[in-house]
Amino acid sequence: MTSKQNTVGATQRMKIGDFLLRRLEEAGIRHLFGVPGDYNLTVLQQLSDTGTLEWVGTTGELTASYAADGYARLNGLGALMVTNGVGALSAINGIGGSYAEHVPVICISGSIPLRSVERGLGMHHTMADGNFDHFMDAYSHVTAAQARITPRNAATEIDRLILTAWRDKLPVYMEFPSDIAFLEIEVPTAPLVLADVPSDPERLGSCIAAITQRLTAAKSPAILVDADADRFGVAPMLMELAEKMQAPMAVVNAAKGVINESFAQYVGIYGGKASEPGVRETIENSDSLLAIGYRPIEVTTGDFTAVLPANTIHARGHSIDVGEDNYQAVTLKEVLRGVIDAVPQATKLAPRPAAAAAMMGTPADGSAKLTQATYWQAIQDYLRPGDVLYVDNGTSFSLLGLKLPPGCTFIGSINWGSIGYSVGALLGALTAAPDRRHLLLIGDGSFQVTAQELSTILRHDHKPVISLINNGGYTIERGYIGKTEPYNDVANWSYAALPKVLRPDTTARSFLVRTGEDLQNALSAPNDTLIFIESIMDSCDAPAPILRSSNLGAELDYGPTGPQHREGLQLRPAKVEVKA
Amino acid sequence: MTSKQNTVGATQRMKIGDFLLRRLEEAGIRHLFGVPGDYNLTVLQQLSDTGTLEWVGTTGELTASYAADGYARLNGLGALMVTNGVGALSAINGIGGSYAEHVPVICISGSIPLRSVERGLGMHHTMADGNFDHFMDAYSHVTAAQARITPRNAATEIDRLILTAWRDKLPVYMEFPSDIAFLEIEVPTAPLVLADVPSDPERLGSCIAAITQRLTAAKSPAILVDADADRFGVAPMLMELAEKMQAPMAVVNAAKGVINESFAQYVGIYGGKASEPGVRETIENSDSLLAIGYRPIEVTTGDFTAVLPANTIHARGHSIDVGEDNYQAVTLKEVLRGVIDAVPQATKLAPRPAAAAAMMGTPADGSAKLTQATYWQAIQDYLRPGDVLYVDNGTSFSLLGLKLPPGCTFIGSINWGSIGYSVGALLGALTAAPDRRHLLLIGDGSFQVTAQELSTILRHDHKPVISLINNGGYTIERGYIGKTEPYNDVANWSYAALPKVLRPDTTARSFLVRTGEDLQNALSAPNDTLIFIESIMDSCDAPAPILRSSNLGAELDYGPTGPQHREGLQLRPAKVEVKA
Repeated sequence: MTSKQNTVGATQRMKIGDFLLRRLEEAGIRHLFGVPGDYNLTVLQQLSDTGTLEWVGTTGELTASYAADGYARLNGLGALMVTNGVGALSAINGIGGSYAEHVPVICISGSIPLRSVERGLGMHHTMADGNFDHFMDAYSHVTAAQARITPRNAATEIDRLILTAWRDKLPVYMEFPSDIAFLEIEVPTAPLVLADVPSDPERLGSCIAAITQRLTAAKSPAILVDADADRFGVAPMLMELAEKMQAPMAVVNAAKGVINESFAQYVGIYGGKASEPGVRETIENSDSLLAIGYRPIEVTTGDFTAVLPANTIHARGHSIDVGEDNYQAVTLKEVLRGVIDAVPQATKLAPRPAAAAAMMGTPADGSAKLTQATYWQAIQDYLRPGDVLYVDNGTSFSLLGLKLPPGCTFIGSINWGSIGYSVGALLGALTAAPDRRHLLLIGDGSFQVTAQELSTILRHDHKPVISLINNGGYTIERGYIGKTEPYNDVANWSYAALPKVLRPDTTARSFLVRTGEDLQNALSAPNDTLIFIESIMDSCDAPAPILRSSNLGAELDYGPTGPQHREGLQLRPAKVEVKA
Repeated sequence: MTSKQNTVGATQRMKIGDFLLRRLEEAGIRHLFGVPGDYNLTVLQQLSDTGTLEWVGTTGELTASYAADGYARLNGLGALMVTNGVGALSAINGIGGSYAEHVPVICISGSIPLRSVERGLGMHHTMADGNFDHFMDAYSHVTAAQARITPRNAATEIDRLILTAWRDKLPVYMEFPSDIAFLEIEVPTAPLVLADVPSDPERLGSCIAAITQRLTAAKSPAILVDADADRFGVAPMLMELAEKMQAPMAVVNAAKGVINESFAQYVGIYGGKASEPGVRETIENSDSLLAIGYRPIEVTTGDFTAVLPANTIHARGHSIDVGEDNYQAVTLKEVLRGVIDAVPQATKLAPRPAAAAAMMGTPADGSAKLTQATYWQAIQDYLRPGDVLYVDNGTSFSLLGLKLPPGCTFIGSINWGSIGYSVGALLGALTAAPDRRHLLLIGDGSFQVTAQELSTILRHDHKPVISLINNGGYTIERGYIGKTEPYNDVANWSYAALPKVLRPDTTARSFLVRTGEDLQNALSAPNDTLIFIESIMDSCDAPAPILRSSNLGAELDYGPTGPQHREGLQLRPAKVEVKA
């Protein structure tokens, strides 16, 4: 800990719960998601007494963790408050997702009073086995840091956890015993400053020189952007670099929208054989590729068909690989700043492919039964600059194939892929940026997991557009196996009727869509209130890229003896019909 | 492993997934709960191909874990199937609850193919950090045993996990890689037999003699029953023993209903100062108390006011304490059988208290606004022999104060206390025993966590009675602090309208209840379909025992400096009005 604000300075007396809330607020957190429980009520009361943060109660803890994640995507940091054991374990899947997707979330569990911990008492919301570390231990596998707060460690541990989350862009876990919130300790008067540890000057200089030398000498430099470019806030710098070098840049699908898709240097999504040929060539044939936070995962690499050049420069948030050299104690921001300043302004556009057609849909026959092709064309046309766009897992991944207008933010969970994530994330991101337009694209199977969080969205008068595909189940799974097997079916709800049940006095507009015309009508509705669109489609209608990905995934998942080749068991892309 | 069936014997070749399903079926499991995902589809396909088990798809994994727990409560063993990481972590709170409440559940995660594990590949539904042990490690804190199945260990590990769950009455966790289901291995031909390891003869004999000696010499023997008496299936034996000794028996609240409440020897619930005075005296003054699986927890001991006699015999499922002596390698069943046979038939009833009044309600004024007092009186009158009764956390705990007719089963989660548990448990127990009458008592806050699982209950044409209290939030928490604070409020749903949304063609009868007459009307409806009753009550109306418990809990949770004494912050029992 070397930051100036944490050296010895003025102190003041403060209640521990008040100090926690003060630090969260100083870290830029203005809302706290979660579910009340007896072990966290003391802090909730302090929140209510002081008005530091706004409490956003959710229907359950899993969605609270998704909301905190969605909030952090737009706010840079998010937090939730749950209760011991039951709340913590209900939230752990969301926190695991934040870890997998590199999102800084602070999970606070109002926990067993210290008196009971120290006396080893049997308490509810525990295993009643005298061991109070089970949940912190479980969280140690999905968070970057953990602590149980005491009067002795509060002033240091609270800062450590918040700074770790912010600096590493990973979640952390805090147990806050219920009996310490109103105890007074001595704390620093100075506010917490979210700042990186500055780079080591020698390492920074050497690293900038090494990268600059490579990029300047290159004939076909290129930049490949993964999600960390967003998390570490360097997308604008990367665009500046690409412009100065006139170098093409692609993104991994997990970084959809991180680079403005109208930007002249942007060429598209790279994912090995799943990419457009020109994009693939640009990345794989670059003689000096700068990759930002690249993580090869089967779902981001076209099932491992992605092959980066051997001399790729791998830049992460806090370290860089250039050839055999590894640079520690550097920050990505300082390295990029130095490289941008050092590379010469290129006058000639580096080789880049012709822009691929973005549309995947077909023009709508308005009165015909709605198809996925018509649906996605309509969604493409509906997008506008500045939208916040959400996909859940399923055929909604088709959003990846659309062209995003400038200023759009894409919120998804490509790697972790927990169905239902997007409903909670929607609540969180709406809370962080209520004035932007938010469009959720989700299927019935995903929606059923977290549907009740629509209640909280309605309760707070948010006005997202929720576009739900009702196609009777997990269509993306039918592309693995089980094309018509009942295990891939879900119950058929009256989805469009749900807003009225969750908020009887709602002004939400609900639409039941069966044709392209119905969809156009729904998408024309004024967005002065929540819009809920339920589009009914065939369970075996799925965009070809989704099915190709599922079909390939089945090979990887099940191997040569798997059942995927059995006749009729796997949903496959329809053969393209050639009209005479 | 000493059981006969596991010694070397005839073997046969079988696909690993088929073997897993066969073993589950041999263990008495006829249904598998869960959510499909690409990593578990191979086993689901084998389930579909072979028809061994019935798949019960749930809307999410948390409720699948609750359902498996509810199923195990009636069936002796339950199982669920989820997918890697996202599914496993979504289910872990339910499994933690099974551990805390001693319920044998087998959690199977269809997991990363072995090829990817061994190659260290980045895969979706993981942290993409090359470490595939995170989720098994997390589960190691909430299960009795864990394993990743391989072709080499399948024949032993599958048996080990099932037997551990059954013998220890605790959950276990299995990762089942997606690429091994269709691989053939050699497995035993003999079926798996669920059997305890027989007791050590010397220890068993000594233990029976020691207990018999104490009980026979006692002037005021008594029996105190905790939940393990149910889990280890010894309730009938305990009643036989009580009858033979003419000894009174009480239960801890977590064992509500385990002993037939009409049984002559049954005296009531013991929980220290929270008990009826006669029950307290019977237990605390017994000169030879036999306690079965007793676990002192604040919520089962009247906030630690329970004080068992120093010479209490503590019997657990697989070990016994008698004075300073500890007996291992014995089973509770064999010990109890021996004690029952050895104690002389008593001719004189041991001292026991007069039966306390069971009713806590008051006669209804039919047209007045419904009160908790009227509500619980009506529920008392509604109970009938053989019911399966569920409470979720909240004022529904009032069920503990009602007198249960013979043959009722109580399903709750007194210690773990995860709100929303009961809806999933209801699905599970309905699946295990569809022909019994099931009555769920739940509040709005708890219901909102898992409401969508009502969809699965409707989908399978189950006919439970669901009685929901709509009182605007977490009233039990208002008794801690936050009597009128917004953090204890929940959104107001049209609960009674939900069945129709979750199954548009439902025949369910929904009732919106505002008065005692409305409630009587609803409770008179024929139970030939699902009955859903939404009863609207005041947010500050709560039975006195619930509030006393919350008030006491606040002292324990928050300590002397806590905010619970601040004017008006805590909901407290109304002073009894004495009519002139």
